[in-house]
Amino acid sequence: MSIKAVVFDAYGTLYDIQSVASVTDQAFPGYGEVVTQVWRMKQLEYTWLRSLMQRYQDFSVVTRESLLYTLDALGLAHDAATVASIMDKYLHLDPYPDAKATLEALKGHKLAILSNGDSAMLDALVTNSGFASLLDATLSVDAAQIFKPSPKTYALVEQKLGVQPRDVAFVSSNPFDASGAKAFGFKVAWIERVTAQALANEARTQQAIGPLTMFKATRLRPDPFGFDPDWTIRTLSELPALLAGSPSG
Amino acid sequence: MSIKAVVFDAYGTLYDIQSVASVTDQAFPGYGEVVTQVWRMKQLEYTWLRSLMQRYQDFSVVTRESLLYTLDALGLAHDAATVASIMDKYLHLDPYPDAKATLEALKGHKLAILSNGDSAMLDALVTNSGFASLLDATLSVDAAQIFKPSPKTYALVEQKLGVQPRDVAFVSSNPFDASGAKAFGFKVAWIERVTAQALANEARTQQAIGPLTMFKATRLRPDPFGFDPDWTIRTLSELPALLAGSPSG
Repeated sequence: MSIKAVVFDAYGTLYDIQSVASVTDQAFPGYGEVVTQVWRMKQLEYTWLRSLMQRYQDFSVVTRESLLYTLDALGLAHDAATVASIMDKYLHLDPYPDAKATLEALKGHKLAILSNGDSAMLDALVTNSGFASLLDATLSVDAAQIFKPSPKTYALVEQKLGVQPRDVAFVSSNPFDASGAKAFGFKVAWIERVTAQALANEARTQQAIGPLTMFKATRLRPDPFGFDPDWTIRTLSELPALLAGSPSG
Repeated sequence: MSIKAVVFDAYGTLYDIQSVASVTDQAFPGYGEVVTQVWRMKQLEYTWLRSLMQRYQDFSVVTRESLLYTLDALGLAHDAATVASIMDKYLHLDPYPDAKATLEALKGHKLAILSNGDSAMLDALVTNSGFASLLDATLSVDAAQIFKPSPKTYALVEQKLGVQPRDVAFVSSNPFDASGAKAFGFKVAWIERVTAQALANEARTQQAIGPLTMFKATRLRPDPFGFDPDWTIRTLSELPALLAGSPSG
């Protein structure tokens, strides 16, 4: 195995999208959980729908549209300042606790992000989290004007880094992204953030199936498309040992 | 206004997809609601993801894959006979109570279905519901090998019926489908099956936000893409009066 570049998804993989719940609950007390989950579900939906409609807009537009949809659907009155304060959290998402140490331990490989985020919001996020000096490149799908899991997005890695798909280890916690990357030809490490057993326990009583459980049940378990990951891991911190046998680029 | 053809979405528009809850609850007592909602959410997700990945498979495959995903995600053990009995309901979905009378009242226009369903499952559904003699055509996206809201799917109407987009009234309760059809160039009637007020009431307490409410909150309110419908109606039965001033084709 020869891995020359390790390419990370951003939202949900290096950065915890659930960390927006602090600001959504502050803005709409009691509604933080449902706003956070519906917003994320619609945000990805809109990337897929706009791609299919051939009506691409930057992820910041999609993120804002999906937030406005969410507040309107739930009947939550909102003003521009509240929306702006929630949107701002997307530039200051909490990194996963082991993200920085993992990037540091992988030094020697080419390291990059490939994300749905547009260049401006990704650059802000990477700078705000102090990851800029740890990454060789931050690649946005805005260069392809379509969202994941279009093969055109994964093709950006070779175009920008000069590394062939078979020499790339792609890391994502998002099952659709892991499948798309595998179908494209990358080696794929999928981060299983919720195990089958944990989710089944959570779902066992109908009362427990609130918005966060629905999010997990729809978006965190592997999709049966036939493009299974090469590795399933539980945390980013497992990566360095996993890739240790690989010659660096 | 000259409307020459009235083209209907099938699932959620002429046929009530929620009617699968009877069989899902029988197969998995206490889990009917969550199975029904997660299944439907994943089913549409898979149409979008497979389209974007350029890995089209017929809707019967997607419907089966999304059902298996749902049962696995919720930790529900299942055998082939149970899966087959649930899948069979998709060939016998309940039509909305006013569907037949609406089609009869619109006689004189060209009437068709344009659906994500593949030809075999659509033909079975249309026959089983007794609608075959009321429709001039049943069009499946399988002729385009991509799913809605790709413009290639809506283009099938002119290719198969010979009616230009501007002369088509397209009817759907699915907001993404209404937006896609409008972006393509059809006149669009969107069926608002859940009002803003009803959903806001349902969402007011965190306790009430179960799987069905999450489905409504994510999939039944209008998406802010800027492709708003020409007409918003509450039931199919409003269509004949709405289109009465229009010369028939």
